[in-house]
Amino acid sequence: MLNPVNSLRINGERLWQSLAELARIGATPKGGVKRLTLTAVDREARERFVAWARAADLAVRVDAIGNIFCRRAGTDPHAAPVAMGSHLDSQPSGGKYDGAYGVMAGLEVMRSLNDAGVATRAPLEVVSWTNEEGSRFTPVMMGSGVVAGVFPLEHCLVQRDADGVSVGEALKAIGFAGEAQAPRLGAYFEAHIEQGPVLEAERTTIGVVQGALGQRWFDCVITGQDAHAGPTPMDSRQDALIGASRLVLEVNRIARAHPDYARGTVGYLQVKPNSRNVVPGEVRMSVEFRNARDSTLLAMVAELKSCVRSIEAECRVAMALDEIVYFPPCEFDARMVASVRAAAGSLGLSHRDIVSGAGHDAVYVARIAPTAMIFIPCEGGISHNELERATPQDLAAGCNVLLHAVLARAGVTQAKEAVT
Amino acid sequence: MLNPVNSLRINGERLWQSLAELARIGATPKGGVKRLTLTAVDREARERFVAWARAADLAVRVDAIGNIFCRRAGTDPHAAPVAMGSHLDSQPSGGKYDGAYGVMAGLEVMRSLNDAGVATRAPLEVVSWTNEEGSRFTPVMMGSGVVAGVFPLEHCLVQRDADGVSVGEALKAIGFAGEAQAPRLGAYFEAHIEQGPVLEAERTTIGVVQGALGQRWFDCVITGQDAHAGPTPMDSRQDALIGASRLVLEVNRIARAHPDYARGTVGYLQVKPNSRNVVPGEVRMSVEFRNARDSTLLAMVAELKSCVRSIEAECRVAMALDEIVYFPPCEFDARMVASVRAAAGSLGLSHRDIVSGAGHDAVYVARIAPTAMIFIPCEGGISHNELERATPQDLAAGCNVLLHAVLARAGVTQAKEAVT
Repeated sequence: MLNPVNSLRINGERLWQSLAELARIGATPKGGVKRLTLTAVDREARERFVAWARAADLAVRVDAIGNIFCRRAGTDPHAAPVAMGSHLDSQPSGGKYDGAYGVMAGLEVMRSLNDAGVATRAPLEVVSWTNEEGSRFTPVMMGSGVVAGVFPLEHCLVQRDADGVSVGEALKAIGFAGEAQAPRLGAYFEAHIEQGPVLEAERTTIGVVQGALGQRWFDCVITGQDAHAGPTPMDSRQDALIGASRLVLEVNRIARAHPDYARGTVGYLQVKPNSRNVVPGEVRMSVEFRNARDSTLLAMVAELKSCVRSIEAECRVAMALDEIVYFPPCEFDARMVASVRAAAGSLGLSHRDIVSGAGHDAVYVARIAPTAMIFIPCEGGISHNELERATPQDLAAGCNVLLHAVLARAGVTQAKEAVT
Repeated sequence: MLNPVNSLRINGERLWQSLAELARIGATPKGGVKRLTLTAVDREARERFVAWARAADLAVRVDAIGNIFCRRAGTDPHAAPVAMGSHLDSQPSGGKYDGAYGVMAGLEVMRSLNDAGVATRAPLEVVSWTNEEGSRFTPVMMGSGVVAGVFPLEHCLVQRDADGVSVGEALKAIGFAGEAQAPRLGAYFEAHIEQGPVLEAERTTIGVVQGALGQRWFDCVITGQDAHAGPTPMDSRQDALIGASRLVLEVNRIARAHPDYARGTVGYLQVKPNSRNVVPGEVRMSVEFRNARDSTLLAMVAELKSCVRSIEAECRVAMALDEIVYFPPCEFDARMVASVRAAAGSLGLSHRDIVSGAGHDAVYVARIAPTAMIFIPCEGGISHNELERATPQDLAAGCNVLLHAVLARAGVTQAKEAVT
């Protein structure tokens, strides 16, 4: 059966222009974006998005945590909506595509369906989630977390930034403390730049995201004894930095030794007293492991603890390891993932399965609705950086995959004209 | 031949009381001392010392860098003076004995000789050197460095502290910009706490100091690539902290593999961007090696450079190693060292040869006069710390060694009474 919408394509030029226009709001001299959540520039971005949504005849509602839902009606009033989205806030030195792409891609799908006069059975929503980045207020992924029931709304509204302003106050100040209920979602697709190097390195356009890695984060304090570097013989030392360096290398070795997309990182390390000719008495450091499987993640942690005991004994230091965060691995809905793969295939786009190493709103939404993500390449894998770059071709390709995956899920009931 | 001064002993109680009185000047709540060079508290300490010296009939002169020389005349007007001394300034969180002991011990030798009516052939000097610590003004060991010709006087006078005050201004402000010429020294003895753990651990009272370790200091910058800890596979990373950790362990290994009192220390390490979930793109760190022999020190550095090349290749990072400081090893005068050993032996004190790991005024004075040092134990090897501690017994023992080494060098020409 020939489906008349099979050859429907989004308008890549319009998507590119919208992303460029949005990127001027909070633009930085180095070509990036500084758009911290619930600030004046975030308000401006939100208002631009809302204006565009209204211009596309979408029904806009805002919920109590400031999430923006923009609906395009479907022909079946009982069908749960198929949603698309991401976030408009950025890191302090952020890029033009992280988050913004998922929202603008959802809007572009709406506009393209309007242009083609295509009606869907299920209604569609494009969603902008509040405070995905967590740079101004914690926790991260706040808006999707509230909707998914991960965080109580009241808990989030009283979180304060470094200046003592609460989320609730900031929402009111920018006019986005809404009263709408978040809709029950029938499905959720999120398009996003990969933020890693894999697609670019493999010259692949579409990442079919299987889910997201689980994460276990630790704080580690290593206690030795300060001593003068000159008079203290090597055998008399209790050098905390020797213990820390051994642990850094073990974290790396453990991650490399495990399957299932294992990652092991020490990103933070602070030496005390941090003086050239004093043997360090204390080191504070982070350790984090990521893996697609909980069982492997636990095996990595067990190995870490065993290393800690060995290093303590061999380096004559005390090591306190404290687990502070656990995100379980997230596996996206198999049929949703298949629909992304099928859309990429039918569009003739190179694609590969991939697992997200980072958290996204989709990880929380997956707890309440069938969810999938679409990744496109970003230059050098660079993200959370003003130098973040993606090509118009890849941005359009990902948006076309989004379009067709959404149509497959929502069902097409009517097309103004058959496109051949 | 029975020498009537063989049984002469210093007054340990008076030495202890003088140290305690001096320690009240700039005393800190934790029992230490904050007496930064050329400050109001340093002035108070200097004035107390000068008053004590005058009370002991010593002739006090101050030179242009603020060194204080206090002379006790000898019977031979042509003999070059035998000097004793150290420094009165402290670290910001310093202890009661580092430096102060060497000055008070010298003063106590003078007082004890006065009490016993002993005249020496050569004149004696007790010296307080300006700015040994280098905490307020660099370079360290400034006063002794000027006298030894290591630093030009004019260069030192224009050095400024963090508030923009110069050494010259500070000297004038406290009334210690003198006009005297530093005397030509015939010999120099410096008594000091060990500032390391060796004597205490071996229950030995006197360290017969052979010299001081040579030092080579480096700055190292390791450049990798910042990347997201989540999306970046282990094989794609250029983690600067992995390179840094390997180098920390190599520095430690190299020091342990070499003889001649080798030390290897990374005391300073700074990670960028130092964020929990970002693979570190840059690490800046210090490396320092110390050794008693220049040839061994050079071998250690050669091995370090070879390690740097291996780590660069294996960790895909760039490492820039920059040598910033070189102190050559210092070997004290053999006859002076022998006189310290002989004094300890004749006093029946346990003693061992030792090499100073840290710099001292004696290291510079050794360039212009036969020099030796006397170490006594300090609790736990702790120094440059308010918790610095030494026992009255050990302080007195070191001072008695100083007395007899000085008398052996200066020659005794007259004793009021024979002490048996």
